[in-house]
Amino acid sequence: MPFTHRVDVRYLEADQQGVVFNMWYLAYLDDAMTALLAHGGLSYPELMAQGWDVQLVHTELDWVGPLRWGERGEVDVALGRVGTTSFTLQFAVRVGDRPVCTAETVYVAVETEGWTKVAVPDVLLAALGPIDPLR
Amino acid sequence: MPFTHRVDVRYLEADQQGVVFNMWYLAYLDDAMTALLAHGGLSYPELMAQGWDVQLVHTELDWVGPLRWGERGEVDVALGRVGTTSFTLQFAVRVGDRPVCTAETVYVAVETEGWTKVAVPDVLLAALGPIDPLR
Amino acid sequence: MPFTHRVDVRYLEADQQGVVFNMWYLAYLDDAMTALLAHGGLSYPELMAQGWDVQLVHTELDWVGPLRWGERGEVDVALGRVGTTSFTLQFAVRVGDRPVCTAETVYVAVETEGWTKVAVPDVLLAALGPIDPLR
Amino acid sequence: MPFTHRVDVRYLEADQQGVVFNMWYLAYLDDAMTALLAHGGLSYPELMAQGWDVQLVHTELDWVGPLRWGERGEVDVALGRVGTTSFTLQFAVRVGDRPVCTAETVYVAVETEGWTKVAVPDVLLAALGPIDPLR
Repeated sequence: MPFTHRVDVRYLEADQQGVVFNMWYLAYLDDAMTALLAHGGLSYPELMAQGWDVQLVHTELDWVGPLRWGERGEVDVALGRVGTTSFTLQFAVRVGDRPVCTAETVYVAVETEGWTKVAVPDVLLAALGPIDPLR
Repeated sequence: MPFTHRVDVRYLEADQQGVVFNMWYLAYLDDAMTALLAHGGLSYPELMAQGWDVQLVHTELDWVGPLRWGERGEVDVALGRVGTTSFTLQFAVRVGDRPVCTAETVYVAVETEGWTKVAVPDVLLAALGPIDPLR
Repeated sequence: MPFTHRVDVRYLEADQQGVVFNMWYLAYLDDAMTALLAHGGLSYPELMAQGWDVQLVHTELDWVGPLRWGERGEVDVALGRVGTTSFTLQFAVRVGDRPVCTAETVYVAVETEGWTKVAVPDVLLAALGPIDPLR
Repeated sequence: MPFTHRVDVRYLEADQQGVVFNMWYLAYLDDAMTALLAHGGLSYPELMAQGWDVQLVHTELDWVGPLRWGERGEVDVALGRVGTTSFTLQFAVRVGDRPVCTAETVYVAVETEGWTKVAVPDVLLAALGPIDPLR
C-alpha cells in the first residue's frame, strides 16, 4: 500500500482548457514528497537543519486524463529505487480510480554546505520507507 | 513620463474565465519594481549584496478590465511618496490605452542582517528617481 | 466566530528571504472564499452552472509578519459588507495567535453570459452567511 | 540553428535554495513553444480559433545546474519528431554557454470540439519548421 497525499486543486491552477496546467503537477509531487517524509517521521526543515538537502535531477510525467478544479486528486507516492547518492520516487495521480498522471523523480542527496553530493543519509532512508515500486 | 515595464502574459496565468487570475498581478508589480530599479542603475541583487532589502507591507489593487493571454500588457510605475523608512510605488496596468488595473504598494527598507527597519538607503532613493505620482 | 480556512504553505511559495512571497496570499484568499461558500452549502462550480460568477474588483493586503514554509497558516474569513451588486470579504491570516496579514476583497456578481453586473444572487448571499465584520 | 526563447527569471521563481524551483521550468517550456509557433507565423490563439489545440502527454526534464534570479536564461527549442497525431519538442535551457536543463515534451493534436485526437494540422506543421533534433 503506497502512501497517498491528497490534492485540493486551486481555481487558479486550471487553465483556459478547464484543466490543471501541467506545471502544477510538479507542485503536487513536491508536496507529496514532503508529506511522505513527514509520514515517515522526518520533517523536511529538520533534514535541512541537520545539514542535508535533496535536489531534483530528473523528472518525467505522463498524462492520461485531466484533473479539474473542484475534483479531489490523490497522489500515491512510493520509493522506487535507491542508489548511492540518489533515490527515485514514483507517483500516480488519480481522481478516485480514474488515472490522471504517472510520474517519476530522481533526487540526489547533498550537503547544504557547498551542495556537494553525499550518500543518502540514514535519517532520510528511514523516513522514505521500504523500496516498493508502484509499477 | 513614468517608467513602463512590459508584460508578456503567460498561458498558465489565464484562468477558466479566460482572464489573468488576480494573483499574477502581484508578480507583474514585483517585476516592474525590479525593472524600475534596474532602469535607475541599481540591480536588486546588488542592493541585497550591500546589506539592504525591502519588504512589502501594504498593497492594494483595483481592476477595471481584463487582461488576456496573447495581449501585451504594460505596467507604468512611478514613485508616489517617500517616508523615513518606507516608500510607495504607484502602478497602472494597461493594454495600449485601455486601463486594466491600478495599484499601489508600500515597502519598508530593512537590513538583511536582522530584518530591522532602516532609513531608505540613498542608493535606493537615487535609483527610484523623483517623486512623480501617477494619480 | 468567523469561518477559518487552513493553509499548508508549499515549499515553492517561500522565496529567497525564506518567507511566503506576497503573490501567494491572493491564492490563499481565493481558496478561503471557495471554502467559505462550500461551508455555506454552495459549491462554486454549481454557482457558475446556475449562470453566475463573481469578479474581484478591489483587494488590499497589510502584512505585519512573515509566514514560513512548514508553518500552518489559518485564514479567518467573514462577510464585511453587502451592496447591490457587490460584497466585501474580510480576511485575517495568522499562525496560531500570531498575526501575519489582514486583507479585504470586493467582488461584484456577474452573469456568466456576457459578464454584466447583477444583483448578488440569493443563493450566494445565503452561502456567505450573516454580515459579521472581523474588524 | 534552433530557435531561442529568452527567459527573465522572476524573483518569486527562486526558492529558499536560491535557485529556480523545478515547476517553473514547465512555464518556460510552454512559453518557448508559444514563441516558436509565433516565430513560425502562427499565433497560438489563432490555432485554437481554427478549431485545433495541443495537449501535453509526456514531458521529461534533466537538470545539470542551477538557474538563479537575475540571470538571463535562454531556451533553445526545436522539433524532434513528428508522428501521425503527435509531435515532440526538444529543449535546452542554458545561461550563456552554461547548460542548466534539457527537456523533451510530447504533444498530441486535438480538436477543440470534443478534444479528440487528430492528425497534426498542416498549419501547425508549417509553423513548427523542419525536424532538426537538438541531441
